[in-house]
Amino acid sequence: MGQLFKRLEENGESNYYPYHMPGHKRHACGELPETLARLDITEIDGFDNLHQPEGLLDGLQKRAARIYGAEESFYLVNGSTAGILSAVSCALPVGGHILMCRNCHKSAYHAAYLRNLTISYLYPQVCEEYDIFDAVTAEQVQDALDREPDIGAVLVVSPTYEGRISDIRAIVRVAHHKGIPLIVDEAHGAHLGLAEGFAPNSCQAGADLVIHSVHKTLPALTQAALLHVNGSLIDRSRLRRFLHIYQTSSPSYILMASIDNALSYVEAEGAQAFEKFRKRFALMLKRLSACRVLRFLPADLQEQDIGKLVIYVKGALMQDSYSKEISLDGKKLYDILRLEYHLQPEMAAESYVLAMFTVGDVEEGYRRMERALLEIDGRLRRRAAAKEHRTFLYSPRNADCRALPLGAAWDMEWEGLELRESAGRYAGEFVNLYPPGIPVLAPGELITEDVCEKLLACLKQGLDVQGIQVSGGKIMLKVLKAR
Amino acid sequence: MGQLFKRLEENGESNYYPYHMPGHKRHACGELPETLARLDITEIDGFDNLHQPEGLLDGLQKRAARIYGAEESFYLVNGSTAGILSAVSCALPVGGHILMCRNCHKSAYHAAYLRNLTISYLYPQVCEEYDIFDAVTAEQVQDALDREPDIGAVLVVSPTYEGRISDIRAIVRVAHHKGIPLIVDEAHGAHLGLAEGFAPNSCQAGADLVIHSVHKTLPALTQAALLHVNGSLIDRSRLRRFLHIYQTSSPSYILMASIDNALSYVEAEGAQAFEKFRKRFALMLKRLSACRVLRFLPADLQEQDIGKLVIYVKGALMQDSYSKEISLDGKKLYDILRLEYHLQPEMAAESYVLAMFTVGDVEEGYRRMERALLEIDGRLRRRAAAKEHRTFLYSPRNADCRALPLGAAWDMEWEGLELRESAGRYAGEFVNLYPPGIPVLAPGELITEDVCEKLLACLKQGLDVQGIQVSGGKIMLKVLKAR
Repeated sequence: MGQLFKRLEENGESNYYPYHMPGHKRHACGELPETLARLDITEIDGFDNLHQPEGLLDGLQKRAARIYGAEESFYLVNGSTAGILSAVSCALPVGGHILMCRNCHKSAYHAAYLRNLTISYLYPQVCEEYDIFDAVTAEQVQDALDREPDIGAVLVVSPTYEGRISDIRAIVRVAHHKGIPLIVDEAHGAHLGLAEGFAPNSCQAGADLVIHSVHKTLPALTQAALLHVNGSLIDRSRLRRFLHIYQTSSPSYILMASIDNALSYVEAEGAQAFEKFRKRFALMLKRLSACRVLRFLPADLQEQDIGKLVIYVKGALMQDSYSKEISLDGKKLYDILRLEYHLQPEMAAESYVLAMFTVGDVEEGYRRMERALLEIDGRLRRRAAAKEHRTFLYSPRNADCRALPLGAAWDMEWEGLELRESAGRYAGEFVNLYPPGIPVLAPGELITEDVCEKLLACLKQGLDVQGIQVSGGKIMLKVLKAR
Repeated sequence: MGQLFKRLEENGESNYYPYHMPGHKRHACGELPETLARLDITEIDGFDNLHQPEGLLDGLQKRAARIYGAEESFYLVNGSTAGILSAVSCALPVGGHILMCRNCHKSAYHAAYLRNLTISYLYPQVCEEYDIFDAVTAEQVQDALDREPDIGAVLVVSPTYEGRISDIRAIVRVAHHKGIPLIVDEAHGAHLGLAEGFAPNSCQAGADLVIHSVHKTLPALTQAALLHVNGSLIDRSRLRRFLHIYQTSSPSYILMASIDNALSYVEAEGAQAFEKFRKRFALMLKRLSACRVLRFLPADLQEQDIGKLVIYVKGALMQDSYSKEISLDGKKLYDILRLEYHLQPEMAAESYVLAMFTVGDVEEGYRRMERALLEIDGRLRRRAAAKEHRTFLYSPRNADCRALPLGAAWDMEWEGLELRESAGRYAGEFVNLYPPGIPVLAPGELITEDVCEKLLACLKQGLDVQGIQVSGGKIMLKVLKAR
């Protein structure tokens, strides 16, 4: 049972009068729900201190470590973002050299900027059939480390946003053979390794630093996360320093209690709940295999995480409201699901829609999605000729395209320029497709014709492109003044 | 009315099924209260995006700006910490020179470390009678700027933790005369300038960057804060960049809704509520003036904030459980209030206890505190001779004591040493008294005999000293190996 929620409840009902923050004084004030006000406290006696845990929170963090098979675990109240910033900052000195996946979350780029790191990118293979980054492999890491002997740490993301899982054990071997630490952004895999039928988590696989967005796949609140540390390559005292720096000195006990809740739930009901989840998700995939036009990324214990329903629309034709036959794209399917069926997917990409399932889903969630997709599929027709142009947005960029290091480039002078005129110039700002927020362009990178066209295609589809300004009908981009 | 809470409620009750994060899927899962699960969402359609606000959140931020008299305001979900880190990072280049109050929050020191800044400290006067830092003055800022012409930004804290208020308008004039920005850590003053009878807030006084911990004095949740920006000295695009860097990409809508709630409350009920608060606090001070031994920091519109009840015990004698007469200190009074009366103060210092009152307090809170303090005062006797040794912990440190810059020192090699043997060495770690977390020692500073003695006295009193390890009965400190 969630120990911290219980303690907060008891405190809320006690006759101790609070002469301390927060300002609501545990009363419903305005529209603040009373449940929230009653639970929300600061570091009063008996409730320990996240930045120097010695009692209650120390115990909860030790339990988290036990559950994930880590040596030490830390509660995060500033999301996995704080975990990535802290992990990268402690693993490398200022000016160090990092090897990281190009499909890392923007926080990894931010850490590299803050610490003025040299970045070498790993470009994972693309699953051609599905237009997504595949998981990065140990061979790719090995090749990169062989090419650049001064790399001081490796950062990979697994599972990816779409659920691709790397062989972390193999990547750990490669990194440790060089004597450098492996950081795994496992934000999307907080449920891994917690029950039979799921891939192991990266602590179990021996990674040095592992970050989990507890809120993404377990019953915790948005913004709650965990960081785990293992082995002797990481200076624990430096790690604590950076966690302290990147996180508020007024951490929310409600967020912390929600982490405790997620782990208590895993311990108490996990075995049963995960089995049910796994089986129900598999059943849905089986039922959806009846679709004639829509395709789905198959679940696979070792390579593809359970819970990510990736719905492909490539080659699908539908009739618009004037009975004209048009191509279905990710955004159109997303809108149909949302507006016609009241099903809110996680995201739309150019050629697919991602719907997330977790251990928290109920039967209704599966049934409504199955019905909707089978019904929509019935309205679709597959295009005869496989007239498929490559639309993948994150093409590997050779060294020439990364002429300027991120740390310097992001601080250089820039000017606004129309997107269609920007080819040949260097980016002055990150350009991301959101979600998931992986940079299509990072500051200092050459803007190619190809990237311009692809970004225009995304904007035309109505996808959310961050780092671009639309003003007076013009699509503007920040480019470096230096050419 | 809190618009965001209402929108979240409506969403929670809608028949839209969530195929997205968070993992609890809006259901009570484990011990997660249903109210929380129902309100907690991610960036779905219609709810905007904190890192690129264009709709709902943009409107709420604009309203915050209007209420505080700022040009632009930003919701913070990583506390004032994120506000200070962002403000300092955008106001100065890496390696710049900052003038900051020695009684700044540790996040200011962290920002200086991250950005490798040269620090010049402002040592505010000490209120001799009360053993606290007074507010910093415009003359002190002027002197420091005259001495060090390359200073690029000024950071002051006002109100201080104990409620001392600076004349920000005058400090703005001094800073702007030099063409540099003023950052005000107004974390403790989110209520300032919102109603008659309170000092103006620093936006109204013309400061460039102002940080408010909304949760400290208004009905918002712990970890919720605001940052405001004014004038043309701050590059807004750089400011957005750092807010983006230091804050999670999964911001909690519950925290954001609580900021909206605080401001909605101020707009709807503020005038009345603040007047009631101001009058009731003044009445309490008047009633407590009947105390013969305990003393209180007087409230004063321009110099001392309303709401901080600072209870002085200097010179007070009490009988212990063996009827022996002993000195009362801050921690003892804190424990009496807490254990005998079930009143939980904000903090204990060596010679005083701080109890915080806000607009959220009810009559019971005032009455119980008045009764307890009058009763306790009746048991006390004032020491005849004014045998008072100066106990102030944060003595001004001359330049010799800051031989090593923070950025370099914190990354140097250190060793553990007993506190009593550490005089003459340089600190390898921050040593803070918590709360409020103002550094007594910063890395690179000379540890003097005086500081050693004072820290030992604090530990003896049972105060919480951070940055010190007690192991095997020994009080250990990190000192730099370089001497």
